[in-house]
Amino acid sequence: MTDFGRSTLPYCSFRSTDFEGSRVGIGIGTDVLDLTTASSVLVPELAGLFASGTLDDLLAAGPHVWRVVRAALLGAASHPTEQLEGWLVKADHVTLDLPFHVGDFVDFYASEQHAINLGRILRPGTEPLTASWKHLPVGYHGRSGTVVVSGTDIIRPSGQQRSTDGDVTVGPTLRLDLEAELGFVVGARSELGIPIGVDRFASHVFGVCVVNDWSARDLQAWEYVPLGPFLGKSFATSISGWIVPLAALEDARVPPPHRDVPVQDYLDDAAEPWGLDIGFEVWLNGTLISTPPFAGMYWTGAQMLAHMTVNGASVRPGDLFASGTVSGAGAPERGSLIELGWDGRDPIELADGTSRSYLADGDSVTISAYANLRGAEGERSWLGEVEGTVVARTRVRTTELSEPHPTVPEGRTS
Amino acid sequence: MTDFGRSTLPYCSFRSTDFEGSRVGIGIGTDVLDLTTASSVLVPELAGLFASGTLDDLLAAGPHVWRVVRAALLGAASHPTEQLEGWLVKADHVTLDLPFHVGDFVDFYASEQHAINLGRILRPGTEPLTASWKHLPVGYHGRSGTVVVSGTDIIRPSGQQRSTDGDVTVGPTLRLDLEAELGFVVGARSELGIPIGVDRFASHVFGVCVVNDWSARDLQAWEYVPLGPFLGKSFATSISGWIVPLAALEDARVPPPHRDVPVQDYLDDAAEPWGLDIGFEVWLNGTLISTPPFAGMYWTGAQMLAHMTVNGASVRPGDLFASGTVSGAGAPERGSLIELGWDGRDPIELADGTSRSYLADGDSVTISAYANLRGAEGERSWLGEVEGTVVARTRVRTTELSEPHPTVPEGRTS
Repeated sequence: MTDFGRSTLPYCSFRSTDFEGSRVGIGIGTDVLDLTTASSVLVPELAGLFASGTLDDLLAAGPHVWRVVRAALLGAASHPTEQLEGWLVKADHVTLDLPFHVGDFVDFYASEQHAINLGRILRPGTEPLTASWKHLPVGYHGRSGTVVVSGTDIIRPSGQQRSTDGDVTVGPTLRLDLEAELGFVVGARSELGIPIGVDRFASHVFGVCVVNDWSARDLQAWEYVPLGPFLGKSFATSISGWIVPLAALEDARVPPPHRDVPVQDYLDDAAEPWGLDIGFEVWLNGTLISTPPFAGMYWTGAQMLAHMTVNGASVRPGDLFASGTVSGAGAPERGSLIELGWDGRDPIELADGTSRSYLADGDSVTISAYANLRGAEGERSWLGEVEGTVVARTRVRTTELSEPHPTVPEGRTS
Repeated sequence: MTDFGRSTLPYCSFRSTDFEGSRVGIGIGTDVLDLTTASSVLVPELAGLFASGTLDDLLAAGPHVWRVVRAALLGAASHPTEQLEGWLVKADHVTLDLPFHVGDFVDFYASEQHAINLGRILRPGTEPLTASWKHLPVGYHGRSGTVVVSGTDIIRPSGQQRSTDGDVTVGPTLRLDLEAELGFVVGARSELGIPIGVDRFASHVFGVCVVNDWSARDLQAWEYVPLGPFLGKSFATSISGWIVPLAALEDARVPPPHRDVPVQDYLDDAAEPWGLDIGFEVWLNGTLISTPPFAGMYWTGAQMLAHMTVNGASVRPGDLFASGTVSGAGAPERGSLIELGWDGRDPIELADGTSRSYLADGDSVTISAYANLRGAEGERSWLGEVEGTVVARTRVRTTELSEPHPTVPEGRTS
């Protein structure tokens, strides 16, 4: 059950039977505060930022505004008034929407253990880490139009696969995988041609979410040379409905691991390290199958952002970049099934007595994240979760275009 | 000078000193028709689609609406009234904006000759075409947030490079390249989980534009294994300000080349082939350096769209996918400098007596496209052009965040 305590104060976009459309919500304990309504009293001069029901305007407003809003929310959460109580809804009674419009989606490959495991499985007999891996955070662009919110069913993708005897066929993936990742949500935009310094992370990144980057390993293996993953990843990426502001993670900051290859100046984060002591729980049909630790990630979010923009590329409100699969050194800390079951050689056992190498239709995957807060004795602060259930593609037909009526969009009548 | 004749009727978003903001325009001869204004008379029931000044609402409206609008424009262009004349502006007197908001940007690799040339240059001694190349249109996602309109200066990107002796350094690219491509603009959305058949191309794709996919070959070479191009491409992609409707290219349709590897059913375009007899001219500082032919492309736009969605990925209005570099068999038909100069071994000569292996600061690149229309004796129909001038990054500083004022967005006051 949802319980965020009173200091994490994550943001969401939620719907309820009590009103039309979506509103911006704040997670307080087991409730959601209707900020679209409450803002007129809590932050009246900023209330317009929450009118759209999404986080879009808040993201664009930048760090000063983020601080002002969070300060007001911390005050309200610690001294709840009767009026505030009136703006609370039980979190388990609302529906969460995709909290913001996703601009560009970039996925990194920042876990050394994950990169080594994948190298060993996919390129046996070769050096598992490619030449550039410890010089830069390897990343690529994914599909932003298929980023979906937690709770959205995942339709099993089809595509080309090559069998071990070299036959090329088309059909539903037989190696559907999950990937436990942390996502970073960009707020303040940057200017084309001007890189974002590794020390400017918190000036541009609003917060984090939990990500499941679903992957079809057979599609991916056949297509990815030389231009990288495409259809093996583009069918769906799930994110949690809750966005945790970076400010709530200050006490979870830890030193990043030692880098045994010296990093270039633009990646040198010694002055402002952004390692994060966040733990994941990966649940498959109610069985806890893995507990990947984020603290050991070789590259931090600050380094990912600095690298992503060192060539002059700009960022926009709503850009999303994810860490790539989080895998620890221990077998029960691997963040994907291809690693947990070593590509089918060692299937994992579930509580119901069945086993899995990859996902079956009907399987439900839930990835939960917790921050381990410094100073708070054993306190784990919940950061939300992302759930998805795999369904077969029943409609094998291709699209019969349902044509929009040639009507005028609302508010656009001339 | 701009001259579109009276039947191509491409769309743009334009600004002028005569009015505030942007308007939707139509290229007629050497003029631009102000459709945002004229629509109230030409297509009154659809006028709202042009109120935003971008093509966004028109793209989303779908093929029925596209046909209705084009029919009205063809009628108006062939029998111009005095009233219509009043809505015309000289094309050379307006400024073109990015014509639509770009959703996802996908770049393909559909020219066999280009793929062979790149394979020979980058992976000498190996089979130039990778195993899957003739089984599927190889593609990857690019950065939509850095797609810019023709005329935008291109700031030379910096990034990590590895020298031949293995030293890794950071600095401005020394191998800045151009890529002549055709872009396809998606209009009607599709549903997640439902592929778009190869025969449904014209139901979802609104039109085409000219694309220059700028590339930093040194950044790309160091980063692209195993997840594909990233910073070597993400700094900028230029598109023409004019979008030519697919309907204007019916007479340019030609049979695609023979595929010597049988294609899977979902890529079988025999019934509805979308080869296009389009020619490009690549100009560098006023010297015509290449004339790549699109007709020889191994994969068509219809196959690219069918492949991109066969896994169930959806498309949205404003999604853009490009063909990848267009290269013909002849040396003067290569669509990139890495091919024209064979990666520096054979620099090209310019009219001013200088030579180039790659782009220098101050270089201006213009890529023009023409459709060769069947039946029209020798008639070339101009499709627009994309220009970009390379400038050095003068501001080496990283961003000093200019914080947005915590004001309420317009029309959002609560």
